[in-house]
Amino acid sequence: MTGTMIISVDAMGGDLGPRAVVEGIGDALKRWPDREVRYLLHGHEDELKPLLAEMPAVAAVSELRHAETTVEMTDKPSEAVRRARGSSMWNAIQSVKSGEAAAIVSGGNTGALMAISKVILRMKKGVHRPAISANWPTPKGHTVVLDVGANVQCGATQLVEFAIMGEAYHRAVFGSETPKVGLLNVGQEELKGNDTVREADGLIRKSGLDMEYIGFIEGNDISAGDLEVVVTDGFTGNIALKTAEGTAKLVAGWVREALTSSWSAKLAAGLLSLGALDRLRKRMDPKYINGGVLLGLKGIVVKSHGGADGIGFASAIGLACAMAESDFMAEIRRNLDKFESFEAQEVAAAS
Amino acid sequence: MTGTMIISVDAMGGDLGPRAVVEGIGDALKRWPDREVRYLLHGHEDELKPLLAEMPAVAAVSELRHAETTVEMTDKPSEAVRRARGSSMWNAIQSVKSGEAAAIVSGGNTGALMAISKVILRMKKGVHRPAISANWPTPKGHTVVLDVGANVQCGATQLVEFAIMGEAYHRAVFGSETPKVGLLNVGQEELKGNDTVREADGLIRKSGLDMEYIGFIEGNDISAGDLEVVVTDGFTGNIALKTAEGTAKLVAGWVREALTSSWSAKLAAGLLSLGALDRLRKRMDPKYINGGVLLGLKGIVVKSHGGADGIGFASAIGLACAMAESDFMAEIRRNLDKFESFEAQEVAAAS
Repeated sequence: MTGTMIISVDAMGGDLGPRAVVEGIGDALKRWPDREVRYLLHGHEDELKPLLAEMPAVAAVSELRHAETTVEMTDKPSEAVRRARGSSMWNAIQSVKSGEAAAIVSGGNTGALMAISKVILRMKKGVHRPAISANWPTPKGHTVVLDVGANVQCGATQLVEFAIMGEAYHRAVFGSETPKVGLLNVGQEELKGNDTVREADGLIRKSGLDMEYIGFIEGNDISAGDLEVVVTDGFTGNIALKTAEGTAKLVAGWVREALTSSWSAKLAAGLLSLGALDRLRKRMDPKYINGGVLLGLKGIVVKSHGGADGIGFASAIGLACAMAESDFMAEIRRNLDKFESFEAQEVAAAS
Repeated sequence: MTGTMIISVDAMGGDLGPRAVVEGIGDALKRWPDREVRYLLHGHEDELKPLLAEMPAVAAVSELRHAETTVEMTDKPSEAVRRARGSSMWNAIQSVKSGEAAAIVSGGNTGALMAISKVILRMKKGVHRPAISANWPTPKGHTVVLDVGANVQCGATQLVEFAIMGEAYHRAVFGSETPKVGLLNVGQEELKGNDTVREADGLIRKSGLDMEYIGFIEGNDISAGDLEVVVTDGFTGNIALKTAEGTAKLVAGWVREALTSSWSAKLAAGLLSLGALDRLRKRMDPKYINGGVLLGLKGIVVKSHGGADGIGFASAIGLACAMAESDFMAEIRRNLDKFESFEAQEVAAAS
């Protein structure tokens, strides 16, 4: 990849407002000094101009695109779509559609981002609904989990599409050659899962996809590092993701308590902070792995966590760049085509 | 509570076999030296006699009840029920039915334990299906989560029953006065959950239960300590529980790595191990919170984790004793009756 990459940014999204976004671009410049990236900064000029004046390094690589309105975090997606034209989110996505930008990053309302992206960018051929992916740390790297919240009710066909998208995503972004794909389920013997996951399991096995599918896995496998792609519906995936966040926070609190509970513990913490503790802190901080990609659209859309600060937003920018540099869009094609022709055969056989 | 409590034990259940069970009784004797408990030890005498000879303290409080057969971990529940008569699991549950024992503990096949318990003990009036509860640590105590695996597909009415059972359970076992109850959901705006959780939310609000219901909560709330009872279906609950276990294990690995990565870190670990680290280790170890109760039956059934060792099995015994000493069976009645009459009114109004 040569030349300058252009990333479109919804500067008004996120709980912390435009400051976190502009600081995030600043942080990205420092974290990846060799990457040549320019930014289209969509948002209200009254708020953005002072911030850019404050951070000249960001101003130097950014082009301000004034947008009069903003999609609010509380807007319902269906209403947002109707009223979003001209908002920072709408315009930021439009920059991808027009070909100006390689990807768009927003920390705004997830449901609205999904709905507006579908309207503007449309779905890839063979994809019924997009999914949101999450990158999950493991001792060996990252597991990709999808869907983590876009679709609260999923059919078996959708789960198969998620498997195809997640597998291509892991190869594209993490460079794995044959990522192992598992379907999230419970471990009870006879009660082995609900009808949907059982049907999806059968479909993946029968449809001859070019994929290393390992079958059902359980919740504890997500972070174990023995597979790379975890497929689930958006209800379960969202709850698993937030449960893991909560657990990491709980354990971090215990560690902090253990390190401050006595003079010897404090002394120990002092010794640790020479390096290992800092690394531990970063590993346990979701900020450093922020960013969910909306997969299945004809364009790259990255959702930053609503509560992300500058460091978090920079992580989402990093992910958008990695996606834009990758060959995800081509990688995904082969298996989507295979699954489409499998489905066509099934329909023909049934009629 | 005065007098000796009798606990029935399925000595053949669990991945580690009878040794872990007998060692578990030994550990319980040490952990709670003031509790007067006797044990009915159901299992094959050829395996149990040598273990009891090895551990005379356990032999002194146990009565061996020979059982010729064992329910295997791989047996399907429906088959297990048909073939289980005379097995250690069947006989152990029968001891509760007959009134000999106050509760039964088993680390065996969950599906079979559930199925056989339903056949022998039957459901409480007003409960359609039992649920398995898990005790989840928080900074303030414990949250009870149910169902964590008994029912992979749940209707709204079942979720309401889980709320009733979980609330009574928390009061009985943890002594809380007005535990807050939440319904596990995703945080997406318009997509606020699937049809079932929305319906259950409406039912709990309308049915006038004597309960502090706080509405929808998200995965990260489970371990935050701001509520005491989390209601969900067995599919989502099981995945959330195992995801949390996996996350705790991942973070524990990072902590271990941070404490052994250099000479200064090792020195720090040495200082910490004077106390704080030990406490941290115990907190992060699921063994110390082992034990899920099968709620909704006419008798107390505690499921120990299949992989639990002696320490883990002792925790499950402790939970069985706490349940047996509590007034759970009476506590649950009031709200179950309220919900039954609410449902009867609804049916009458609809006809």
